[in-house]
Amino acid sequence: MTPEELLLLAEINGFNADYGARLDAGDFAAWPDFFAPEGLYRIIGRENFDAGRPLCIMQLEGQGMMRDRVYGINNTLFHAPYFQRHVIGMARLLAPPAEDGIAAEASYAVFRTRPASNMAGGGVSEVFNVGRYLDLFRRQPDGRLRLLRRDCVFDSELILNSLIYPI
Amino acid sequence: MTPEELLLLAEINGFNADYGARLDAGDFAAWPDFFAPEGLYRIIGRENFDAGRPLCIMQLEGQGMMRDRVYGINNTLFHAPYFQRHVIGMARLLAPPAEDGIAAEASYAVFRTRPASNMAGGGVSEVFNVGRYLDLFRRQPDGRLRLLRRDCVFDSELILNSLIYPI
Amino acid sequence: MTPEELLLLAEINGFNADYGARLDAGDFAAWPDFFAPEGLYRIIGRENFDAGRPLCIMQLEGQGMMRDRVYGINNTLFHAPYFQRHVIGMARLLAPPAEDGIAAEASYAVFRTRPASNMAGGGVSEVFNVGRYLDLFRRQPDGRLRLLRRDCVFDSELILNSLIYPI
Repeated sequence: MTPEELLLLAEINGFNADYGARLDAGDFAAWPDFFAPEGLYRIIGRENFDAGRPLCIMQLEGQGMMRDRVYGINNTLFHAPYFQRHVIGMARLLAPPAEDGIAAEASYAVFRTRPASNMAGGGVSEVFNVGRYLDLFRRQPDGRLRLLRRDCVFDSELILNSLIYPI
Repeated sequence: MTPEELLLLAEINGFNADYGARLDAGDFAAWPDFFAPEGLYRIIGRENFDAGRPLCIMQLEGQGMMRDRVYGINNTLFHAPYFQRHVIGMARLLAPPAEDGIAAEASYAVFRTRPASNMAGGGVSEVFNVGRYLDLFRRQPDGRLRLLRRDCVFDSELILNSLIYPI
Repeated sequence: MTPEELLLLAEINGFNADYGARLDAGDFAAWPDFFAPEGLYRIIGRENFDAGRPLCIMQLEGQGMMRDRVYGINNTLFHAPYFQRHVIGMARLLAPPAEDGIAAEASYAVFRTRPASNMAGGGVSEVFNVGRYLDLFRRQPDGRLRLLRRDCVFDSELILNSLIYPI
C-alpha cells in the first residue's frame, strides 16, 4: 500500500464515518451534501442487483430528489420514527483511483431501535439492514470527495416494517 | 486530512480496538487505565442525553469509582455472567485537536452471548447495546491518550436483562 | 504509533476487508489464497479455546484441505444456501512484528440472511456468529501478507442451523 492509497482510504473511511453519524443523528438535511449535484443513490436488494434487475426500494437521482426525500421524511411522510445506528467496516478500493472516479466498497450493518413507548416490541435494538456500499467517488472542485453514486446493496430480503430513512 | 490528523485518528482507532478487546476478554481490571485519573464514564440513553437529562444507567467519576465497580463485578455483584463482543466503527474528530482535549466520536455495537448451559435462551449471540462513544481524550504526561470523559450514548431503550459490565 | 506500524495496520485492515468481501460475495474459490500454503484455519468456540481444548467446528490444515472444503461447498455439501455479511473491527497488533510472524487480532460480526423463498423465518438478517480473529500473518516472498494461522474464536455457543461457509 502506498502512502497515497493509505491517505485516500483514510479519507474515504472518514467520509463514511461522517455519513453514518449524520444519518444516525437524524440530521437528514446534511445528507444530500455527501453527494455530487448529479449523484445517484439507490437502495437495492442483492438478488436484484446481482441479476442486473433495476428494481430498487429507493432510487434518487441528483441532490434535488434527495432534498425532496428529506422534506418528505421531516414533513409529510407518515411513519413511526425510529433510531438508526450504522457500524461501517473499512473501505477497500475496487480499482486504482482514476481521474473520473474512485470505486470503493464497504460493508455496513444498520441497527434500528423503535421507541419503547410507541409500540409493542419497541425499545430493543434489532439488525435492520446489512449489506455493502458500492461507491463511486469523485473529487469536487473544492477538493472534497463526493459520491457520484452510492448503491446500498443489502442482503436482507425482508425489510422490517418500512424503510423510511436513507441507509 | 493532514498526516498529523491521520496519525491521531489511527491512534484513537487503536485505542478503541484495545478498549473493546480488553472488555471482551473479561479483563475488567485493565479497564480503568483507559481513563485519566479524574476521568468520567457514563452510560446514558440517547433520549436522556439529547434532552439534557442527567439520568444514566452507569456513572463513574474517577478511576477510584471505576475500580470499585470492577471489584463489584468480580467479587460482589450477583449476576449471570455473559460474553460481550464489541465491533467499533472508525472514529471521527468532532473539533480540531486542542491542548486541553481531543473530542471524538465512534459508533459501536455490542453483542452479548449468555452461556447455553445457564439458562433458556442462552447460547445465541444477540444485539445487546448499540450507540456511540462520545469522547474527550487528553494526552497524559507519559505521552499516551487517556479518556477525560466517555459517554456511551445508546439507542437501545430496553436493556436486555441487566447491564453489568462496562460498554 | 510509528509510521511503519500505521502502514502495517492499514495493510492488515485492508487484508481483512478483502477477506470479508470475498466471502460475502460467495467467491469461496478465492478464500484459500488468503493463507500461506501451510496455513491453518480453525473455527473454535471461546470456551474450548480458553480452556485449551482442541475441539473445533472447522479445522483445515493447509490450502489443500481448504480447497477441498470449497469444492464441497460448491459441489457436494447438501445445505440451504445463505448470505453472509462481515463487519470487521480495526485490527490491533498483539506483539511487535517479527521476522517469523505478525500476531494480530480483530473483532468480527457475521450476519446471515437466508432466502425468504426457501423457508419459514427466511429473509431477515440475523446475528450469526460474533468473535475475534486471532491471526498470525507472514509476509510471503511476493511481498504480500498471508495467514499462517487464523483462529476464529467465536462467542456464540449455539450455531444457528449449520455453519457451512468459512467465517
